[in-house]
Amino acid sequence: MYTLYSMRRSGNSYKVRLALSQLGIPYDLVEVDILRGETRTPEFLAKNPSGQVPLLEVAPGRYLPESNAILWYIAGGTPLAPDDRIDRAEALQWMFFEQHSVEPNLGAAHFWLTLVKGGRDLHTHALEGWTERGYQALRVMEQHLESRPFFAAGRYTIADIALYAYTHTANETVFDLTGFPAIRAWLKRVADQPGYVPITWEPAALAIAE
Amino acid sequence: MYTLYSMRRSGNSYKVRLALSQLGIPYDLVEVDILRGETRTPEFLAKNPSGQVPLLEVAPGRYLPESNAILWYIAGGTPLAPDDRIDRAEALQWMFFEQHSVEPNLGAAHFWLTLVKGGRDLHTHALEGWTERGYQALRVMEQHLESRPFFAAGRYTIADIALYAYTHTANETVFDLTGFPAIRAWLKRVADQPGYVPITWEPAALAIAE
Repeated sequence: MYTLYSMRRSGNSYKVRLALSQLGIPYDLVEVDILRGETRTPEFLAKNPSGQVPLLEVAPGRYLPESNAILWYIAGGTPLAPDDRIDRAEALQWMFFEQHSVEPNLGAAHFWLTLVKGGRDLHTHALEGWTERGYQALRVMEQHLESRPFFAAGRYTIADIALYAYTHTANETVFDLTGFPAIRAWLKRVADQPGYVPITWEPAALAIAE
Repeated sequence: MYTLYSMRRSGNSYKVRLALSQLGIPYDLVEVDILRGETRTPEFLAKNPSGQVPLLEVAPGRYLPESNAILWYIAGGTPLAPDDRIDRAEALQWMFFEQHSVEPNLGAAHFWLTLVKGGRDLHTHALEGWTERGYQALRVMEQHLESRPFFAAGRYTIADIALYAYTHTANETVFDLTGFPAIRAWLKRVADQPGYVPITWEPAALAIAE
């Protein structure tokens, strides 16, 4: 059985929890609190030198980091992971877009404003940059969704899961989605998928990081 | 035949030119100058709403953006793109790492210091951030390469191509690779691969963007 190292309310961790739920895959959950430095301990860094969650133990002692790589691993061979060459490339396209245009902006705003709640390390110029580049990413997403129900392969895939994570919490930070009707309709379509669980959901069996 | 929209000395564009050369795939090259705003014209934005290169026309009128997604598309079915489930996940892991930890730091330093050469939009605090996070990424790469010849699947793959692009030009900006012997040995191994071409190489037939 998989063991997932994950943090509550982390969008990157939520991607994996959502996909595991939708795929009906059981797993052990280890809660790791980034804010308490639990990803910076020697024990955790031995598992993932990048010091990040999510982290999936795919076999005893074999750890896979990177939320979007984990999505491809757990969804491989299922309809959630497109197998056709161009469909796969299109799903990958949006997942790389998510990691360089969405997560560093919408995700950073989420981390600092919702989890850390400001503090001396949050500079105004950083927030301005996230806001500007975040809206730019949202405009690209809106345009794509104006004529399509989902991001890739004409159906719901892990590309949607990846993009949903930080987009569905955007309005909790500095982003106003009123002017993005196609994104709002897509958010609802994702939440209507079988096996959907909200970001606050946790499996019954929950371990706590040492 | 593919048409590749690419910019000279862009690391993201170079990834695709390098892979196409190593795969022996012919293509038409269209040079696009980001610094002259050629990715912001209505014509280019109709092809890629993100306004970025590289962009590959995979079939007439069908455009695929995102350097790392293009690598998976063109290398699919070849040894450069691992097909085994865990090997594929490991290659993806490093390619996502590249897009959020290497490209935004080493790549940004390369863009501003080597191509734009400073200017009023380059703030000191931005360069400090890139330097700190760039070295952090290099330390993770160094540690991984200390016991492995390549990043994933135990062999040379598109994960190496993705990471090579901005790492091999790092010393042209603010990064000193003296303390990273494993990375330096890996850079040499990549440059020794069959079909290798340097970032300055261009195919004979070269179109210029309108």
